[in-house]
Amino acid sequence: MKVICQGNELSDALSKVVKALPIRRNNLILEGVKLTAVGDTVTLFATDLELAIEKKINAQVLIEGEMVVPGRLFADYAKKIEEEEVELDGTNPNRLVIKYLDSELQIKCLPVDEYPIFKEVDTEQSFVILKKDFKEAIAKVIFNVSQDEARPSLKGVCLNIKDDEIEIVASDGFRLALTRTMIKNNGVLKKILVPSKSMTELSRLIEDGEETITVYVEKSYIMVDLFHTKIVTRLISEEYINYEHIIPVSFTTVVTADKKLVENAVERAALINRTEKKAIVKMDIKEDTLLLNAQGEDGEVNERVTIGLQGKDLIIGYNTKYLIDCLHAIDEPVITLNFTTSTAPGIIKGESDKWLYLILPLRVIG
Amino acid sequence: MKVICQGNELSDALSKVVKALPIRRNNLILEGVKLTAVGDTVTLFATDLELAIEKKINAQVLIEGEMVVPGRLFADYAKKIEEEEVELDGTNPNRLVIKYLDSELQIKCLPVDEYPIFKEVDTEQSFVILKKDFKEAIAKVIFNVSQDEARPSLKGVCLNIKDDEIEIVASDGFRLALTRTMIKNNGVLKKILVPSKSMTELSRLIEDGEETITVYVEKSYIMVDLFHTKIVTRLISEEYINYEHIIPVSFTTVVTADKKLVENAVERAALINRTEKKAIVKMDIKEDTLLLNAQGEDGEVNERVTIGLQGKDLIIGYNTKYLIDCLHAIDEPVITLNFTTSTAPGIIKGESDKWLYLILPLRVIG
Repeated sequence: MKVICQGNELSDALSKVVKALPIRRNNLILEGVKLTAVGDTVTLFATDLELAIEKKINAQVLIEGEMVVPGRLFADYAKKIEEEEVELDGTNPNRLVIKYLDSELQIKCLPVDEYPIFKEVDTEQSFVILKKDFKEAIAKVIFNVSQDEARPSLKGVCLNIKDDEIEIVASDGFRLALTRTMIKNNGVLKKILVPSKSMTELSRLIEDGEETITVYVEKSYIMVDLFHTKIVTRLISEEYINYEHIIPVSFTTVVTADKKLVENAVERAALINRTEKKAIVKMDIKEDTLLLNAQGEDGEVNERVTIGLQGKDLIIGYNTKYLIDCLHAIDEPVITLNFTTSTAPGIIKGESDKWLYLILPLRVIG
Repeated sequence: MKVICQGNELSDALSKVVKALPIRRNNLILEGVKLTAVGDTVTLFATDLELAIEKKINAQVLIEGEMVVPGRLFADYAKKIEEEEVELDGTNPNRLVIKYLDSELQIKCLPVDEYPIFKEVDTEQSFVILKKDFKEAIAKVIFNVSQDEARPSLKGVCLNIKDDEIEIVASDGFRLALTRTMIKNNGVLKKILVPSKSMTELSRLIEDGEETITVYVEKSYIMVDLFHTKIVTRLISEEYINYEHIIPVSFTTVVTADKKLVENAVERAALINRTEKKAIVKMDIKEDTLLLNAQGEDGEVNERVTIGLQGKDLIIGYNTKYLIDCLHAIDEPVITLNFTTSTAPGIIKGESDKWLYLILPLRVIG
């Protein structure tokens, strides 16, 4: 192959597709970005066999063909070029020669016939969602996924696609985040599990905005087709936890509080035992006051936040990191903390039913 | 002791003095910040026995006294408070109680009598330098210091204080950076060696500007007295290399080039062997052209830069990292590269004599 394209377009396209390169380097061929030059287009493609990203750019194709080029080197070189023309010369199939102004990079290429072939995703079933809603929902839940290899289903984000809304859920077994968003449904009614890395990269590649995107869903894959960029991810085939049955719906202690005040107080309390693995903050809820207490080797912190209370007084303990994570993700000024007993899961919510965080308490003494 | 001060002043002061806390934690008492409340002032002090930073803030002193408070915890807590008043209550000498709005932190304190005492630095000899000149000179040389414990003198930055100028020099034995800056001298004529950590922190604490600072110099210490902030650093007592004799002054190959073009070319060339320990770039200087070549496992890069040449053609090899480091530090549009032979040190300079970089070449084949 031999093509001429714009430096900045090549650079931008490479920076996107390399997001699909494997993090662990144990399969040399997957380190490559596959280039396919046909007609007036060069297609760039990379995959770690779970996530695949494809991006097309316009080019003057002098000789059609395909090559697999070491991806990170190619992308790093492309970062250093600007809008001038760049020539990709693969006349010798073992070596791509990249010419840009007075600069010339020769890269040894990888064998094209060893590169995996991805089948096209069926576009029969899909749902349509606002870009900004999708991005926001992912940001609100993604930090709750598990890192534990022993529980593969919890390493994914669950998309529960319903008639006119989608529930997006993530959990690590100790906490759970759920968001609900309106969609337009084209024949999908199921729960699917998307690997969290794919979900993160998908969210990054979607630009914020009022436009919609279409998510195509088939048995083992989903696919999103953005402007000249196609993202495909394999789904996790495990069964997800039956989360609907875990989330309590009635409470005996309901606290209404200013989110920023609670966040500041928990952050200060967290300082005292930040080096401990399971740092705990004790909440003492009584009348119009939430007292927070945390203790560590160097001393202790006490915080007082004025609240509204409906129901009974309660003392309950929480993992400080979990509390801080979810408070950071909340962008509403007022929250409610909803409890039954000091051993049952508590729920943090806003005014709407659009999102909630569930956290299992820790045992506290006194 | 018991004092009331402004939250933001306390926070700002702590963020400065903690820069002097030891990086390695092998002496518990040095983890502390010493507070001294006298008159209408609280003095905060921290040291790793090499660098010491002292900062005074205004306070309403209810009970005079002194305490040593775990520094990082205290500083992190102070980061989370704002302009409202904060009370520091050390009525119980083992424990400082910090009250801020509805927040209360109790910290176990360290024994005051174990804290080291620093003597005052003599202010008889000093030099005066423009803040911005001093900051710029440090930034231009500091990355050249050695990390090698076996050569303690090269871990320092050399200040060669002359009649009306100062030479600031750093070297790791393979490269050397030198800057010359005007000063007003009050009786110092010597070479001193400042530990690089102290030099870095000193540079950070000096605000950029056209004002001057006074650097007091005595046998084993230097001291800088900024507005309510005093910085003292111990000097390295080793002999420094006789750098004046290493720097060549006459050359047989002098290349004039656009700095940005050379920098871009070297950066691109560096990509191909970036994972190698001693990455080398070969420079082939001939007539009006500088050809750069770098090779690695994945291929090779060739770059061509148009130059002006006075003198003989030359082929010379350099450590790419050294070249990039010094090109990044240069903020002039035109540079000269000055050589004699392919085995003698080369000098990179600007139009003035205010700074220069010396780099030892690597052997190249062909």
